[in-house]
Amino acid sequence: MIKNYRLTISYDGTRYFGWEHQPNTDMTIQGKIEIVLARMLVGEKYGEAADKDEELVKSNIPEVLCAGRTDAGVHAEAMIASVRLNTDYSPEEIRDYANRYLPDDICIREAVVAGDRFHARYNACGKTYRYRCYIGDTKPIFDRKYVYVLDKKPDVGEMKKAAALLLGEHDFRSFCSNPKMKKSTVRLVDRIDIVQDGDYLSLTYHGSGFLQYMVRIMTGTLLEVGWGKRSADSMTELLAAKDRRLAGETAPAQGLTMVKVDY
Amino acid sequence: MIKNYRLTISYDGTRYFGWEHQPNTDMTIQGKIEIVLARMLVGEKYGEAADKDEELVKSNIPEVLCAGRTDAGVHAEAMIASVRLNTDYSPEEIRDYANRYLPDDICIREAVVAGDRFHARYNACGKTYRYRCYIGDTKPIFDRKYVYVLDKKPDVGEMKKAAALLLGEHDFRSFCSNPKMKKSTVRLVDRIDIVQDGDYLSLTYHGSGFLQYMVRIMTGTLLEVGWGKRSADSMTELLAAKDRRLAGETAPAQGLTMVKVDY
Repeated sequence: MIKNYRLTISYDGTRYFGWEHQPNTDMTIQGKIEIVLARMLVGEKYGEAADKDEELVKSNIPEVLCAGRTDAGVHAEAMIASVRLNTDYSPEEIRDYANRYLPDDICIREAVVAGDRFHARYNACGKTYRYRCYIGDTKPIFDRKYVYVLDKKPDVGEMKKAAALLLGEHDFRSFCSNPKMKKSTVRLVDRIDIVQDGDYLSLTYHGSGFLQYMVRIMTGTLLEVGWGKRSADSMTELLAAKDRRLAGETAPAQGLTMVKVDY
Repeated sequence: MIKNYRLTISYDGTRYFGWEHQPNTDMTIQGKIEIVLARMLVGEKYGEAADKDEELVKSNIPEVLCAGRTDAGVHAEAMIASVRLNTDYSPEEIRDYANRYLPDDICIREAVVAGDRFHARYNACGKTYRYRCYIGDTKPIFDRKYVYVLDKKPDVGEMKKAAALLLGEHDFRSFCSNPKMKKSTVRLVDRIDIVQDGDYLSLTYHGSGFLQYMVRIMTGTLLEVGWGKRSADSMTELLAAKDRRLAGETAPAQGLTMVKVDY
């Protein structure tokens, strides 16, 4: 029976070209999950041996839609995705099957039957992203793939002042990597928490949604404020300019993690 | 001037054949640190270009002695080592030079001048090791290289009862991987804390010192108690038997981390 499922997914994005399918590579999160689910469906329908028939598997790939497509190298603690599957397996069986065959850097934390109209992207009404920097004197070891190592310590007080000016509903075109973006670039950002904890500095963003690279460009810009390269006050002007070239550098992907999606 | 230095070192042991030098591989923690320090010494003494002269570098390798040689795949948060170096660099300069050239999974957290008689191994009077297991329903992602994933959840209460019987000064020959060990196998273990925290179960051991594989064999044995394969009471008998073949399996290296050395 066809049902709509809601998946909660964690992944270490280091090895991947982002969430979304791409031509010429199978190294995407979406691609890895879809092919495993397709094998499960084919095995269930045509018998276990059939899941080795690559043609048959490819013609049975379900579409796994996520709340927000992460870019290459970006991680997720709890990405939400929806997918329609024609299967008699229970949600736990789907989860366990997928985890057995997914690479060790992708995990389906939870699978549940969702309402028929549930859509991971269209129904999402808020998202939380966390950007982590390492500001210690030496180097991070165990989480080296999940942080951005800063050469010099930023002034956190100045960064907080600048962040406060970015809060609210604004046209964030200056923080959008796509200059040809035709759809609205207005978003609501209602929280930017900047917290220093020992050798780490984390920036947690919550908002209605984020434009392409928006969190990383905001982080890069706030760091430039912290380093004294631009003033906290200049954020107002920067928002008004609606010109990405005036914002700071895009902070590296590896420090960014999608943390939570609200519905 | 020759001085004795004390180094605090973190490393992710995943890629390495353990702390100690081995023939036919340069993939040891000791080897990586010694070669970088040798390059520093040669560069300082003979000019910067000289550090590319492999023969000269190899004939200037200092001996870096650690508190306890970790096995292949075992990690360290704060291994302590001592080394005599003939250099005019400050301890911070030594640390920063080493971190610049060490691989990204080895870091010297701190370098300080130590008393001339300080010896990282002989002066160590206590050590703390932590063994981490993952007991969640799915799979760990971000720390997957630092935990042992358990297929079934152990009874933590039974493990604690068994651990209590291992505390004290005992002949731990049953927990020593080397059956031909000629030196004393008596050790004092004064703390085994077993803590479940969400999807994780950690076993923290403190003692005067540990035999080869001892923490991993103790962990494997305590897990077998938790899974009902042996009784908590049987620990007394097991200690008395002084026979490694009667203890449990050696838990995998990747869950083990050297946490602290006491002096």
